Amino acid sequence: SGLVHIKNPHLDAMEEDVLYHLDLGTKTHNLPAMFGDIKFVCVGGSPNRMRAFAQFMHKELGLTGDGEDLADICAGTDRYAMYRAGPVLSISHGMGIPSISIMLHELIKLLHHAKCRDVTIIRIGTSGGLGIEAGSVVITDTAVDSSFKPRFEQVVLDDVVVRSTELDKDLAEELLACSKETPDFPTLIGHTMCTYDFYEGQGRLDGALCSFSSEKKLEYLKRAYDAGVRNIEMESTAFAALCGLCGLKGECC
Amino acid sequence: SGLVHIKNPHLDAMEEDVLYHLDLGTKTHNLPAMFGDIKFVCVGGSPNRMRAFAQFMHKELGLTGDGEDLADICAGTDRYAMYRAGPVLSISHGMGIPSISIMLHELIKLLHHAKCRDVTIIRIGTSGGLGIEAGSVVITDTAVDSSFKPRFEQVVLDDVVVRSTELDKDLAEELLACSKETPDFPTLIGHTMCTYDFYEGQGRLDGALCSFSSEKKLEYLKRAYDAGVRNIEMESTAFAALCGLCGLKGECC
Repeated sequence: SGLVHIKNPHLDAMEEDVLYHLDLGTKTHNLPAMFGDIKFVCVGGSPNRMRAFAQFMHKELGLTGDGEDLADICAGTDRYAMYRAGPVLSISHGMGIPSISIMLHELIKLLHHAKCRDVTIIRIGTSGGLGIEAGSVVITDTAVDSSFKPRFEQVVLDDVVVRSTELDKDLAEELLACSKETPDFPTLIGHTMCTYDFYEGQGRLDGALCSFSSEKKLEYLKRAYDAGVRNIEMESTAFAALCGLCGLKGECC
Repeated sequence: SGLVHIKNPHLDAMEEDVLYHLDLGTKTHNLPAMFGDIKFVCVGGSPNRMRAFAQFMHKELGLTGDGEDLADICAGTDRYAMYRAGPVLSISHGMGIPSISIMLHELIKLLHHAKCRDVTIIRIGTSGGLGIEAGSVVITDTAVDSSFKPRFEQVVLDDVVVRSTELDKDLAEELLACSKETPDFPTLIGHTMCTYDFYEGQGRLDGALCSFSSEKKLEYLKRAYDAGVRNIEMESTAFAALCGLCGLKGECC
Protein backbone atom coordinates (compact mmCIF):
# COMPACT_ATOMS: atom_id res chain seq x y z
CA SER A 1 0.00 0.00 0.00
CA GLY A 2 3.01 2.29 0.37
CA LEU A 3 1.89 3.36 3.85
CA VAL A 4 4.34 3.23 6.75
CA HIS A 5 3.92 0.33 9.19
CA ILE A 6 3.31 1.23 12.79
CA LYS A 7 4.04 -1.84 14.90
CA ASN A 8 2.29 -0.79 18.06
CA PRO A 9 -1.11 -2.31 18.94
CA HIS A 10 -1.67 0.31 21.67
CA LEU A 11 -1.74 3.24 19.29
CA ASP A 12 -5.21 2.59 17.84
CA ALA A 13 -6.77 2.76 21.30
CA MET A 14 -5.30 6.19 22.03
CA GLU A 15 -7.66 9.12 21.79
CA GLU A 16 -4.88 11.55 21.01
CA ASP A 17 -1.28 11.11 19.92
CA VAL A 18 0.99 13.93 21.04
CA LEU A 19 4.27 14.02 19.10
CA TYR A 20 5.84 15.76 22.05
CA HIS A 21 9.36 16.45 20.73
CA LEU A 22 8.01 17.78 17.42
CA ASP A 23 5.36 19.96 19.10
CA LEU A 24 2.67 18.39 16.90
CA GLY A 25 -0.34 16.20 17.69
CA THR A 26 -3.39 14.50 16.23
CA LYS A 27 -5.85 16.78 18.03
CA THR A 28 -3.96 20.05 17.73
CA HIS A 29 -2.94 19.70 14.08
CA ASN A 30 -4.54 18.42 10.88
CA LEU A 31 -1.65 16.12 10.04
CA PRO A 32 -3.11 14.72 6.75
CA ALA A 33 -3.62 18.29 5.47
CA MET A 34 -0.20 19.43 6.63
CA PHE A 35 1.85 16.41 5.54
CA GLY A 36 -0.28 14.04 3.42
CA ASP A 37 1.60 14.89 0.19
CA ILE A 38 5.12 14.45 1.60
CA LYS A 39 7.21 12.07 -0.55
CA PHE A 40 10.75 12.67 0.70
CA VAL A 41 12.15 13.24 4.16
CA CYS A 42 15.76 14.35 4.53
CA VAL A 43 17.31 14.32 7.98
CA GLY A 44 20.61 15.55 9.43
CA GLY A 45 22.01 16.55 12.79
CA SER A 46 22.21 20.34 12.62
CA PRO A 47 19.05 22.51 12.58
CA ASN A 48 20.77 25.32 10.66
CA ARG A 49 21.96 22.95 7.95
CA MET A 50 18.51 21.38 7.60
CA ARG A 51 17.02 24.87 7.15
CA ALA A 52 19.69 25.63 4.53
CA PHE A 53 18.86 22.33 2.82
CA ALA A 54 15.13 23.17 2.72
CA GLN A 55 15.98 26.58 1.23
CA PHE A 56 18.16 24.85 -1.36
CA MET A 57 15.34 22.40 -2.23
CA HIS A 58 12.88 25.30 -2.46
CA LYS A 59 15.05 26.90 -5.15
CA GLU A 60 15.88 23.62 -6.94
CA LEU A 61 12.18 22.73 -7.18
CA GLY A 62 11.37 26.21 -8.56
CA LEU A 63 8.75 26.82 -5.88
CA THR A 64 7.13 30.23 -5.66
CA GLY A 65 7.58 32.51 -2.67
CA ASP A 66 10.58 33.41 -0.60
CA GLY A 67 12.57 30.27 0.18
CA GLU A 68 14.74 32.36 2.52
CA ASP A 69 11.93 32.73 4.97
CA LEU A 70 10.79 29.13 5.57
CA ALA A 71 9.01 28.64 8.88
CA ASP A 72 10.16 26.04 11.41
CA ILE A 73 7.17 23.68 11.70
CA CYS A 74 8.45 22.62 15.15
CA ALA A 75 9.00 26.23 16.31
CA GLY A 76 7.24 25.49 19.63
CA THR A 77 10.10 23.20 20.70
CA ASP A 78 13.88 23.49 20.42
CA ARG A 79 14.43 19.72 20.41
CA TYR A 80 14.28 19.47 16.61
CA ALA A 81 13.69 21.80 13.66
CA MET A 82 11.50 20.93 10.65
CA TYR A 83 11.05 22.70 7.32
CA ARG A 84 9.24 21.77 4.15
CA ALA A 85 9.84 22.59 0.50
CA GLY A 86 7.08 21.14 -1.66
CA PRO A 87 6.99 17.36 -1.14
CA VAL A 88 10.29 17.40 0.77
CA LEU A 89 10.49 17.53 4.55
CA SER A 90 13.83 18.53 6.09
CA ILE A 91 14.30 17.69 9.78
CA SER A 92 17.19 17.92 12.25
CA HIS A 93 17.86 14.99 14.58
CA GLY A 94 20.67 16.17 16.87
CA MET A 95 23.67 13.94 17.51
CA GLY A 96 23.68 10.24 18.30
CA ILE A 97 21.37 7.23 18.27
CA PRO A 98 19.14 8.22 21.22
CA SER A 99 18.48 11.64 19.71
CA ILE A 100 17.67 10.40 16.18
CA SER A 101 15.53 7.57 17.64
CA ILE A 102 13.17 9.94 19.45
CA MET A 103 12.75 11.98 16.27
CA LEU A 104 12.20 8.90 14.07
CA HIS A 105 9.56 7.38 16.37
CA GLU A 106 7.59 10.63 16.19
CA LEU A 107 8.24 11.19 12.48
CA ILE A 108 7.08 7.66 11.60
CA LYS A 109 3.88 8.22 13.60
CA LEU A 110 3.45 11.59 11.86
CA LEU A 111 3.72 9.94 8.41
CA HIS A 112 1.23 7.28 9.60
CA HIS A 113 -1.31 9.77 10.93
CA ALA A 114 -0.91 11.90 7.79
CA LYS A 115 -1.53 8.79 5.62
CA CYS A 116 1.59 9.48 3.56
CA ARG A 117 2.40 6.95 0.84
CA ASP A 118 5.67 5.83 -0.76
CA VAL A 119 7.90 8.02 1.34
CA THR A 120 11.67 7.89 0.88
CA ILE A 121 13.84 8.99 3.79
CA ILE A 122 17.50 9.94 3.42
CA ARG A 123 19.97 10.86 6.15
CA ILE A 124 22.30 13.56 4.80
CA GLY A 125 24.16 14.46 8.01
CA THR A 126 27.88 14.76 8.67
CA SER A 127 30.24 11.77 8.71
CA GLY A 128 33.97 11.20 8.70
CA GLY A 129 35.47 9.43 5.68
CA LEU A 130 37.80 6.45 6.04
CA GLY A 131 40.54 5.96 3.46
CA ILE A 132 38.69 7.99 0.83
CA GLU A 133 39.16 11.44 -0.68
CA ALA A 134 37.99 14.32 1.55
CA GLY A 135 34.61 15.63 0.42
CA SER A 136 33.47 12.25 -0.92
CA VAL A 137 29.85 11.17 -0.55
CA VAL A 138 29.40 7.65 0.82
CA ILE A 139 26.08 6.02 0.01
CA THR A 140 25.50 3.38 2.69
CA ASP A 141 24.71 -0.17 1.60
CA THR A 142 24.78 -1.48 5.18
CA ALA A 143 25.18 0.28 8.51
CA VAL A 144 27.50 -1.59 10.87
CA ASP A 145 28.30 -1.26 14.57
CA SER A 146 31.72 -0.71 16.16
CA SER A 147 32.51 -4.43 15.64
CA PHE A 148 31.70 -4.03 11.91
CA LYS A 149 28.57 -6.18 12.28
CA PRO A 150 25.33 -5.28 10.42
CA ARG A 151 23.19 -5.09 13.54
CA PHE A 152 21.55 -2.70 15.94
CA GLU A 153 21.12 -3.74 19.55
CA GLN A 154 17.93 -2.16 20.88
CA VAL A 155 17.19 -2.36 24.57
CA VAL A 156 13.44 -3.02 25.03
CA LEU A 157 12.70 -2.66 28.75
CA ASP A 158 15.69 -4.69 29.95
CA ASP A 159 15.89 -7.13 27.05
CA VAL A 160 18.36 -6.68 24.22
CA VAL A 161 16.79 -7.18 20.79
CA VAL A 162 19.07 -7.42 17.74
CA ARG A 163 17.78 -5.74 14.58
CA SER A 164 18.92 -5.73 10.97
CA THR A 165 20.59 -2.60 9.59
CA GLU A 166 20.34 -3.24 5.86
CA LEU A 167 19.29 -0.28 3.79
CA ASP A 168 17.47 -0.16 0.47
CA LYS A 169 19.95 -1.44 -2.15
CA ASP A 170 17.90 -0.18 -5.12
CA LEU A 171 17.73 3.30 -3.62
CA ALA A 172 21.51 3.21 -3.07
CA GLU A 173 22.04 2.36 -6.77
CA GLU A 174 19.56 5.06 -7.79
CA LEU A 175 21.41 7.68 -5.74
CA LEU A 176 24.74 6.52 -7.19
CA ALA A 177 23.28 6.94 -10.68
CA CYS A 178 22.15 10.50 -9.75
CA SER A 179 25.71 11.29 -8.67
CA LYS A 180 26.94 10.75 -12.23
CA GLU A 181 25.15 13.97 -13.20
CA THR A 182 27.07 15.98 -10.58
CA PRO A 183 30.74 15.14 -11.10
CA ASP A 184 31.98 17.79 -8.61
CA PHE A 185 32.63 15.28 -5.84
CA PRO A 186 33.50 11.57 -5.68
CA THR A 187 30.60 9.30 -4.75
CA LEU A 188 30.80 5.65 -3.77
CA ILE A 189 28.79 2.89 -2.09
CA GLY A 190 30.19 1.40 1.12
CA HIS A 191 29.49 0.37 4.68
CA THR A 192 28.90 3.11 7.26
CA MET A 193 30.07 2.48 10.81
CA CYS A 194 27.89 3.89 13.57
CA THR A 195 29.35 4.52 17.04
CA TYR A 196 27.94 5.71 20.36
CA ASP A 197 30.90 7.98 20.98
CA PHE A 198 32.76 10.57 18.95
CA TYR A 199 36.11 10.56 20.79
CA GLU A 200 36.99 7.19 22.36
CA GLY A 201 34.61 5.31 20.07
CA GLN A 202 36.03 6.65 16.79
CA GLY A 203 39.74 6.45 17.58
CA ARG A 204 40.24 10.18 18.16
CA LEU A 205 43.40 11.15 20.03
CA ASP A 206 42.09 14.55 21.18
CA GLY A 207 39.30 13.82 23.67
CA ALA A 208 39.40 14.50 27.41
CA LEU A 209 40.15 10.78 27.79
CA CYS A 210 42.30 8.68 25.49
CA SER A 211 43.76 5.34 26.57
CA PHE A 212 45.03 4.05 23.21
CA SER A 213 48.11 4.78 21.14
CA SER A 214 48.21 6.22 17.67
CA GLU A 215 49.24 2.75 16.40
CA LYS A 216 46.26 1.05 18.08
CA LYS A 217 43.95 3.66 16.56
CA LEU A 218 45.33 3.11 13.06
CA GLU A 219 45.16 -0.66 13.45
CA TYR A 220 41.44 -0.36 14.38
CA LEU A 221 40.63 1.99 11.53
CA LYS A 222 42.49 -0.31 9.12
CA ARG A 223 40.41 -3.25 10.31
CA ALA A 224 37.28 -1.15 9.77
CA TYR A 225 38.41 -0.27 6.24
CA ASP A 226 39.19 -3.93 5.49
CA ALA A 227 35.66 -4.82 6.67
CA GLY A 228 34.25 -2.44 4.04
CA VAL A 229 33.67 0.65 6.20
CA ARG A 230 34.09 3.88 4.23
CA ASN A 231 32.71 6.40 6.70
CA ILE A 232 31.87 6.77 10.40
CA GLU A 233 28.99 8.55 12.06
CA MET A 234 26.64 8.19 15.01
CA GLU A 235 23.09 7.47 13.80
CA SER A 236 22.96 5.04 10.85
CA THR A 237 22.32 1.70 12.61
CA ALA A 238 19.29 3.03 14.52
CA PHE A 239 18.08 4.81 11.37
CA ALA A 240 18.40 1.63 9.26
CA ALA A 241 16.73 -0.55 11.91
CA LEU A 242 13.73 1.74 12.41
CA CYS A 243 13.23 2.42 8.69
CA GLY A 244 13.47 -1.31 7.93
CA LEU A 245 10.91 -2.30 10.56
CA CYS A 246 8.44 0.42 9.55
CA GLY A 247 8.64 -0.19 5.80
CA LEU A 248 10.26 3.15 5.01
CA LYS A 249 12.61 3.20 2.02
CA GLY A 250 15.73 4.62 3.65
CA GLU A 251 19.30 5.57 2.83
CA CYS A 252 22.23 7.33 4.47
CA CYS A 253 24.60 9.36 2.35
CA SER B 1 44.87 21.01 43.31
CA GLY B 2 41.21 21.31 42.35
CA LEU B 3 42.09 21.21 38.64
CA VAL B 4 40.25 18.85 36.31
CA HIS B 5 42.15 15.72 35.25
CA ILE B 6 42.66 15.22 31.56
CA LYS B 7 43.59 11.57 30.99
CA ASN B 8 45.00 11.88 27.52
CA PRO B 9 48.80 11.81 27.02
CA HIS B 10 48.42 13.00 23.41
CA LEU B 11 46.94 16.36 24.35
CA ASP B 12 50.17 17.98 25.55
CA ALA B 13 51.83 17.36 22.19
CA MET B 14 49.08 19.14 20.27
CA GLU B 15 49.87 22.62 19.05
CA GLU B 16 46.23 23.66 19.04
CA ASP B 17 43.10 22.17 20.56
CA VAL B 18 39.95 22.96 18.64
CA LEU B 19 36.79 22.37 20.67
CA TYR B 20 34.93 21.86 17.44
CA HIS B 21 31.36 21.39 18.71
CA LEU B 22 31.63 24.42 21.02
CA ASP B 23 33.19 26.63 18.33
CA LEU B 24 36.07 27.48 20.69
CA GLY B 25 39.79 26.72 20.58
CA THR B 26 43.11 27.33 22.30
CA LYS B 27 44.49 29.49 19.46
CA THR B 28 41.33 31.39 18.59
CA HIS B 29 40.21 32.17 22.13
CA ASN B 30 41.88 33.17 25.40
CA LEU B 31 40.23 30.41 27.42
CA PRO B 32 41.81 31.31 30.83
CA ALA B 33 40.57 34.90 30.46
CA MET B 34 37.13 33.81 29.28
CA PHE B 35 36.53 30.95 31.72
CA GLY B 36 39.25 30.87 34.42
CA ASP B 37 36.88 32.05 37.18
CA ILE B 38 34.08 29.56 36.44
CA LYS B 39 33.05 27.63 39.58
CA PHE B 40 29.75 26.03 38.54
CA VAL B 41 28.59 24.43 35.31
CA CYS B 42 24.93 23.58 34.88
CA VAL B 43 23.90 21.44 31.92
CA GLY B 44 20.57 20.38 30.45
CA GLY B 45 19.20 19.16 27.13
CA SER B 46 17.36 22.16 25.74
CA PRO B 47 19.22 25.30 24.58
CA ASN B 48 16.25 27.57 25.32
CA ARG B 49 15.95 26.29 28.86
CA MET B 50 19.68 26.70 29.48
CA ARG B 51 19.42 30.32 28.31
CA ALA B 52 16.44 30.83 30.64
CA PHE B 53 18.46 29.26 33.47
CA ALA B 54 21.40 31.61 32.84
CA GLN B 55 18.99 34.57 32.87
CA PHE B 56 17.54 33.30 36.15
CA MET B 57 21.05 32.95 37.65
CA HIS B 58 21.94 36.44 36.42
CA LYS B 59 19.03 37.87 38.42
CA GLU B 60 19.55 35.63 41.46
CA LEU B 61 23.22 36.65 41.68
CA GLY B 62 22.27 40.34 41.42
CA LEU B 63 24.59 40.89 38.48
CA THR B 64 24.55 44.23 36.71
CA GLY B 65 23.45 44.63 33.12
CA ASP B 66 20.57 43.15 31.18
CA GLY B 67 20.28 39.45 31.95
CA GLU B 68 17.67 39.18 29.21
CA ASP B 69 20.25 39.71 26.53
CA LEU B 70 22.93 37.11 27.37
CA ALA B 71 25.07 36.15 24.37
CA ASP B 72 25.44 32.53 23.28
CA ILE B 73 29.18 31.85 23.68
CA CYS B 74 28.86 29.02 21.13
CA ALA B 75 26.90 31.16 18.64
CA GLY B 76 29.13 29.99 15.78
CA THR B 77 27.69 26.47 16.03
CA ASP B 78 24.18 25.15 16.54
CA ARG B 79 25.35 21.88 18.16
CA TYR B 80 25.21 23.33 21.69
CA ALA B 81 24.41 26.66 23.34
CA MET B 82 26.46 28.18 26.20
CA TYR B 83 25.72 31.16 28.44
CA ARG B 84 27.42 32.53 31.51
CA ALA B 85 26.15 34.43 34.55
CA GLY B 86 29.04 35.37 36.84
CA PRO B 87 30.85 32.19 37.90
CA VAL B 88 28.07 29.97 36.49
CA LEU B 89 28.23 28.44 33.02
CA SER B 90 24.97 27.12 31.55
CA ILE B 91 25.29 24.71 28.60
CA SER B 92 22.88 22.61 26.57
CA HIS B 93 23.79 19.02 25.73
CA GLY B 94 21.01 17.77 23.46
CA MET B 95 19.38 14.41 24.10
CA GLY B 96 21.09 11.12 24.92
CA ILE B 97 24.47 9.76 25.95
CA PRO B 98 26.33 10.31 22.65
CA SER B 99 25.25 13.95 22.54
CA ILE B 100 26.17 14.78 26.16
CA SER B 101 29.46 12.86 25.80
CA ILE B 102 30.70 15.05 22.94
CA MET B 103 29.85 18.17 24.94
CA LEU B 104 31.47 16.87 28.14
CA HIS B 105 34.74 15.88 26.42
CA GLU B 106 35.04 19.41 25.04
CA LEU B 107 33.83 21.11 28.24
CA ILE B 108 36.34 19.17 30.37
CA LYS B 109 39.15 20.20 28.00
CA LEU B 110 37.87 23.78 28.15
CA LEU B 111 38.02 23.78 31.98
CA HIS B 112 41.52 22.26 31.75
CA HIS B 113 42.82 24.83 29.26
CA ALA B 114 41.20 27.64 31.26
CA LYS B 115 42.91 26.33 34.46
CA CYS B 116 39.61 26.35 36.35
CA ARG B 117 39.73 25.10 39.94
CA ASP B 118 37.15 23.43 42.19
CA VAL B 119 34.41 23.32 39.60
CA THR B 120 31.05 21.74 40.45
CA ILE B 121 28.93 20.46 37.57
CA ILE B 122 25.21 19.75 37.88
CA ARG B 123 22.89 18.26 35.28
CA ILE B 124 19.48 19.95 35.64
CA GLY B 125 17.75 18.53 32.55
CA THR B 126 14.38 16.84 32.20
CA SER B 127 13.61 13.41 33.64
CA GLY B 128 10.52 11.30 34.27
CA GLY B 129 9.64 10.48 37.87
CA LEU B 130 8.93 6.93 39.02
CA GLY B 131 6.44 6.39 41.85
CA ILE B 132 6.92 9.92 43.19
CA GLU B 133 4.83 13.07 43.17
CA ALA B 134 4.81 14.98 39.85
CA GLY B 135 7.15 17.95 40.00
CA SER B 136 9.52 16.32 42.49
CA VAL B 137 13.25 16.91 42.23
CA VAL B 138 15.35 13.74 42.38
CA ILE B 139 18.95 14.25 43.45
CA THR B 140 20.89 11.29 42.06
CA ASP B 141 23.06 9.26 44.42
CA THR B 142 23.95 6.71 41.75
CA ALA B 143 23.15 6.56 38.06
CA VAL B 144 22.15 3.07 36.91
CA ASP B 145 21.67 1.46 33.50
CA SER B 146 18.53 -0.27 32.18
CA SER B 147 19.41 -3.35 34.27
CA PHE B 148 19.59 -1.14 37.41
CA LYS B 149 23.36 -1.63 37.63
CA PRO B 150 25.66 1.28 38.61
CA ARG B 151 27.82 1.09 35.50
CA PHE B 152 28.45 2.73 32.17
CA GLU B 153 29.67 0.61 29.29
CA GLN B 154 31.95 2.73 27.12
CA VAL B 155 33.07 1.36 23.77
CA VAL B 156 36.75 2.31 23.25
CA LEU B 157 37.63 1.39 19.67
CA ASP B 158 35.98 -2.07 19.71
CA ASP B 159 36.59 -2.89 23.37
CA VAL B 160 33.90 -2.45 26.00
CA VAL B 161 35.17 -0.74 29.15
CA VAL B 162 32.95 -0.68 32.25
CA ARG B 163 33.03 2.54 34.28
CA SER B 164 31.63 3.52 37.66
CA THR B 165 28.63 5.85 37.80
CA GLU B 166 28.74 7.00 41.41
CA LEU B 167 28.17 10.67 41.96
CA ASP B 168 29.40 12.95 44.74
CA LYS B 169 27.48 11.91 47.88
CA ASP B 170 28.45 15.04 49.85
CA LEU B 171 27.23 17.27 47.04
CA ALA B 172 23.96 15.31 46.97
CA GLU B 173 23.47 15.92 50.71
CA GLU B 174 24.40 19.59 50.27
CA LEU B 175 21.80 19.99 47.51
CA LEU B 176 19.19 18.20 49.62
CA ALA B 177 19.95 20.64 52.49
CA CYS B 178 19.47 23.58 50.07
CA SER B 179 16.06 22.20 49.12
CA LYS B 180 14.84 22.69 52.71
CA GLU B 181 14.93 26.44 52.04
CA THR B 182 12.61 26.10 49.05
CA PRO B 183 9.67 24.02 50.24
CA ASP B 184 7.64 24.59 47.02
CA PHE B 185 8.42 21.15 45.61
CA PRO B 186 9.31 17.75 47.08
CA THR B 187 12.99 16.83 46.88
CA LEU B 188 14.53 13.42 47.50
CA ILE B 189 17.70 11.44 46.92
CA GLY B 190 17.44 8.30 44.79
CA HIS B 191 18.88 6.32 41.90
CA THR B 192 18.46 7.69 38.40
CA MET B 193 18.06 5.21 35.55
CA CYS B 194 19.66 6.16 32.25
CA THR B 195 18.43 4.58 29.00
CA TYR B 196 19.50 4.78 25.35
CA ASP B 197 15.92 5.02 24.16
CA PHE B 198 12.91 7.11 25.11
CA TYR B 199 10.12 4.85 23.79
CA GLU B 200 10.98 1.14 23.86
CA GLY B 201 13.70 1.64 26.48
CA GLN B 202 11.50 3.44 29.03
CA GLY B 203 8.37 1.32 28.76
CA ARG B 204 6.34 3.82 26.75
CA LEU B 205 3.28 2.43 24.97
CA ASP B 206 3.06 5.25 22.39
CA GLY B 207 6.12 4.87 20.17
CA ALA B 208 6.11 3.81 16.52
CA LEU B 209 7.12 0.36 17.78
CA CYS B 210 5.90 -1.32 20.95
CA SER B 211 6.19 -5.06 21.49
CA PHE B 212 5.29 -5.26 25.20
CA SER B 213 2.00 -5.19 27.08
CA SER B 214 0.92 -2.63 29.63
CA GLU B 215 1.40 -5.34 32.30
CA LYS B 216 4.97 -6.08 31.19
CA LYS B 217 5.74 -2.34 31.27
CA LEU B 218 4.39 -1.95 34.79
CA GLU B 219 6.25 -5.04 35.97
CA TYR B 220 9.52 -3.54 34.62
CA LEU B 221 8.93 -0.12 36.17
CA LYS B 222 8.03 -1.78 39.48
CA ARG B 223 11.30 -3.71 39.41
CA ALA B 224 13.12 -0.43 38.73
CA TYR B 225 11.37 1.22 41.67
CA ASP B 226 12.21 -1.72 43.94
CA ALA B 227 15.86 -1.37 42.90
CA GLY B 228 15.81 2.24 44.15
CA VAL B 229 15.18 4.06 40.84
CA ARG B 230 13.18 7.26 41.32
CA ASN B 231 13.56 8.88 37.92
CA ILE B 232 14.50 8.00 34.33
CA GLU B 233 16.46 10.01 31.81
CA MET B 234 19.03 9.54 29.05
CA GLU B 235 22.38 11.04 30.08
CA SER B 236 23.27 10.37 33.73
CA THR B 237 25.49 7.27 33.45
CA ALA B 238 27.80 8.87 30.88
CA PHE B 239 27.77 12.13 32.88
CA ALA B 240 28.69 10.32 36.12
CA ALA B 241 31.40 8.22 34.47
CA LEU B 242 33.11 11.18 32.75
CA CYS B 243 32.88 13.47 35.80
CA GLY B 244 34.24 10.72 38.04
CA LEU B 245 37.22 9.96 35.80
CA CYS B 246 38.13 13.63 35.36
CA GLY B 247 37.82 14.61 39.02
CA LEU B 248 34.82 16.88 38.51
CA LYS B 249 32.41 17.10 41.44
CA GLY B 250 29.17 16.19 39.69
CA GLU B 251 25.49 15.74 40.43
CA CYS B 252 22.27 15.17 38.50
CA CYS B 253 19.04 16.60 39.81
